[in-house]
Amino acid sequence: MIVDRSLWSKKKEFMLRRLLEDQDIGYLDEELYDILLEFFRREGTFTISSCSGRVVFIDAQMPWVREGSTIIFKKHKPITVEECLDIINKPILHNLWMIVTGPIIHASTASLREARLITSIARTAGFKHSGIISIRRDGIIIELKSGIGVTQIIKSGNTILVNTDRINELVEICNKVLLKGKERLYRLKELLIKYREVT
Amino acid sequence: MIVDRSLWSKKKEFMLRRLLEDQDIGYLDEELYDILLEFFRREGTFTISSCSGRVVFIDAQMPWVREGSTIIFKKHKPITVEECLDIINKPILHNLWMIVTGPIIHASTASLREARLITSIARTAGFKHSGIISIRRDGIIIELKSGIGVTQIIKSGNTILVNTDRINELVEICNKVLLKGKERLYRLKELLIKYREVT
Repeated sequence: MIVDRSLWSKKKEFMLRRLLEDQDIGYLDEELYDILLEFFRREGTFTISSCSGRVVFIDAQMPWVREGSTIIFKKHKPITVEECLDIINKPILHNLWMIVTGPIIHASTASLREARLITSIARTAGFKHSGIISIRRDGIIIELKSGIGVTQIIKSGNTILVNTDRINELVEICNKVLLKGKERLYRLKELLIKYREVT
Repeated sequence: MIVDRSLWSKKKEFMLRRLLEDQDIGYLDEELYDILLEFFRREGTFTISSCSGRVVFIDAQMPWVREGSTIIFKKHKPITVEECLDIINKPILHNLWMIVTGPIIHASTASLREARLITSIARTAGFKHSGIISIRRDGIIIELKSGIGVTQIIKSGNTILVNTDRINELVEICNKVLLKGKERLYRLKELLIKYREVT
């Protein structure tokens, strides 16, 4: 077999302890706890990292470039028009991007069979861009991701590229996108519960 | 082995014939031909579908929803300010989205080893979201995708949400994003040439 099961199990124990600690100190995105436990409940899976979806404002040349860019604002819940206007009015260095991302989960599975099952469940729940991203001795790493998201340019340098009279509509759509992502997370949890006994 | 090699080889032959036909009738995105041949040149790989990156304007509730939505405009090359203004001035039913996507390639490999090698080469070339999306008897299907892209709301109903005095800046950034994607395609081709003999 590709995966060293004893090494994998040690990692799972470690990650479970960390998850419980994160929950204890309130570090964990609360919407995620239930669904992450649902993954851990499976004999052949544990999660490594996850995000329930968020709104980020970033000062960057291009939205996917992290080098030299600055995160101005980050929130895992809907944003307000005031928050948005506040951000727009601050001077920036490059471009101002508003990035709304759907949920993303990275997990490790103990076998290819389990990896295929979980990615297939995820796809059914609307995580259309799910797949195996790495096959290693310590686990088969899968990424579960939907196509949900918006990448909006707000300012080029300090020139505003959006209609400032319609910021409320922009914020409304941005929040709707965020919530659509959270819905898929809920759907995934329901499906994991349904397939608890399937291995 | 997971993959039925004879079935896989038949598929490869079929897809190669189709690629050559597509090239003949000018159906193929010209920037792609060289790189696709580079994949076919490998003993264990062939491509299934691909896009060199494009700009799409879509009339849709949400940009990832295909049902009930209409593609207004599609181009694999940079767009002009006139084209953009033309689109903005047409009435729509839902929301108007401008979606710039980077290149995406789906390929089939004959073994897990080859799948891992190709996704790893792709990641080095900047296709950071590459992975195995399906493991089947007729091939291991991989998706090669970068994080490059912009999904921009332009109109909510017929209310314009962008600054119409600055459409030129919007178009400029959109074209820059498109070209960044094409650059990665070139990088991928160079790496595939470099790793021709590695299996």
